[in-house]
Amino acid sequence: MDPLRLNRADRAQLAMMLEVSAFPKPGNVDRCHDYPDTRIEHFLASAILVRPALEKAMQHTSGVGKIIHEAVELSSVHSGGNTHFGAFILLIPLIMGDGIEGATRIVRETTVEDAIEFYRAFGRTNVRVISGDELDVNDPGMIDELRTREMTLYDVMLHSAPNDMVAREWVNGFALTKRTTDRIMEEGCGRDSVVRSFLWLLSIEPDTFVIKKHGRDTAWEVMQKATEVREGVRDLETFDAQCIKDGINPGSIADIIIASIYSAMGEGWEWDC
Amino acid sequence: MDPLRLNRADRAQLAMMLEVSAFPKPGNVDRCHDYPDTRIEHFLASAILVRPALEKAMQHTSGVGKIIHEAVELSSVHSGGNTHFGAFILLIPLIMGDGIEGATRIVRETTVEDAIEFYRAFGRTNVRVISGDELDVNDPGMIDELRTREMTLYDVMLHSAPNDMVAREWVNGFALTKRTTDRIMEEGCGRDSVVRSFLWLLSIEPDTFVIKKHGRDTAWEVMQKATEVREGVRDLETFDAQCIKDGINPGSIADIIIASIYSAMGEGWEWDC
Repeated sequence: MDPLRLNRADRAQLAMMLEVSAFPKPGNVDRCHDYPDTRIEHFLASAILVRPALEKAMQHTSGVGKIIHEAVELSSVHSGGNTHFGAFILLIPLIMGDGIEGATRIVRETTVEDAIEFYRAFGRTNVRVISGDELDVNDPGMIDELRTREMTLYDVMLHSAPNDMVAREWVNGFALTKRTTDRIMEEGCGRDSVVRSFLWLLSIEPDTFVIKKHGRDTAWEVMQKATEVREGVRDLETFDAQCIKDGINPGSIADIIIASIYSAMGEGWEWDC
Repeated sequence: MDPLRLNRADRAQLAMMLEVSAFPKPGNVDRCHDYPDTRIEHFLASAILVRPALEKAMQHTSGVGKIIHEAVELSSVHSGGNTHFGAFILLIPLIMGDGIEGATRIVRETTVEDAIEFYRAFGRTNVRVISGDELDVNDPGMIDELRTREMTLYDVMLHSAPNDMVAREWVNGFALTKRTTDRIMEEGCGRDSVVRSFLWLLSIEPDTFVIKKHGRDTAWEVMQKATEVREGVRDLETFDAQCIKDGINPGSIADIIIASIYSAMGEGWEWDC
């Protein structure tokens, strides 16, 4: 098929579908693995039901924060917890900006209202935050605080960037998304390219979601093991099984992969070969 | 989640997603099995990309035949061949009629124009037809023939009903869809209910797609083996593996299951439990 026949919302939905269908992906829900509370159907339902928010992003009918909030509302109609929150944070500006350059401009122009909507969305998820974070989303006074400090959504991401690789993309011009897009395209078409790019990313970047959940040492250990898999000295499926057993799910890397599949499709990458 | 919060297009998309994700389903593409040319991603892409046609069905913006044609065009942007043609033939009137009763009325009111659009859609697929069928879709004179004989789409389905269980639903008031909907609801919520209902249907009805591809004897053998699985005297996974090895994919039963999941969700069936 010609990926350029698809519109941006189509591509975003396919990117979410392709990421979760790719296997084996160490630690994450994939075609062969569920977690007890989060199953592949939850990810696929989220990718399907978020459609109206993606269309709004294409049409710029509201601001980034409000669209992220709507995306979370639409995709939270299942019991599987947070599935695509991080992915939406990346996809929505990428759709609105029609690419990385436009997205970089879009995120810089966000407002305090965007930040407030984003916190409302955050409240709907069970996203893990670092305890002691001064911008604790569970704090009901947070919205007043955003207003008083005149923090835009960009400022919020700047604040979170040191500890969150998804937020970091907003402030570094989507650097890792760009690099991973190139990687996916170099790896060739189809499912195997996604798996190899996932493993590559896992071997070069500590997943900040894993850090929040299990600490820095575990995240570095995952990188080391992913490197060994790539070097052919560790078995991929055993590594995958061990991660799943220990609940080590590199969710932020999955978010970057989704954004990168989306971006690669926009450059003509073929998923179907 | 509350399935009634979803609109009809949402439910149709989720039904297609839930059917292909359910496993093990003897012979068909499921979460654990692809065919070399048709993979789970093709089914999921089809379920995602067909959305605009499903919205037209909700809004009745054109006739049944034209919407089926559009659905096939939208979902044929992948290399996996026919994925959901039979499912669309059932889902589109079910969406338009908002249930089985309304769908029964909708299909009776179809026109010659609907029949012509349907044949145009048929031409886009590689759907198997019985050779010697006097309504051969590969015959370019067919459309003139439909006009001369003043055949509506309902008449076409009536003609196909003896040899096609999907067409049969149009002329018998969606009898098997209704029975399977009841079965899914009786089996309880979630994925296992889909798998058990699939196996039940496989044990009581010969799949007409299997008949067209492998002959009547094979279809009866599949029913017999499905019965043995249900009685606990045959192993499900071995049966599944054998069907896949022999290319015995009960595709029409999958179409009925999709229509029935859709219908069950409309009656409050919970997929997520």
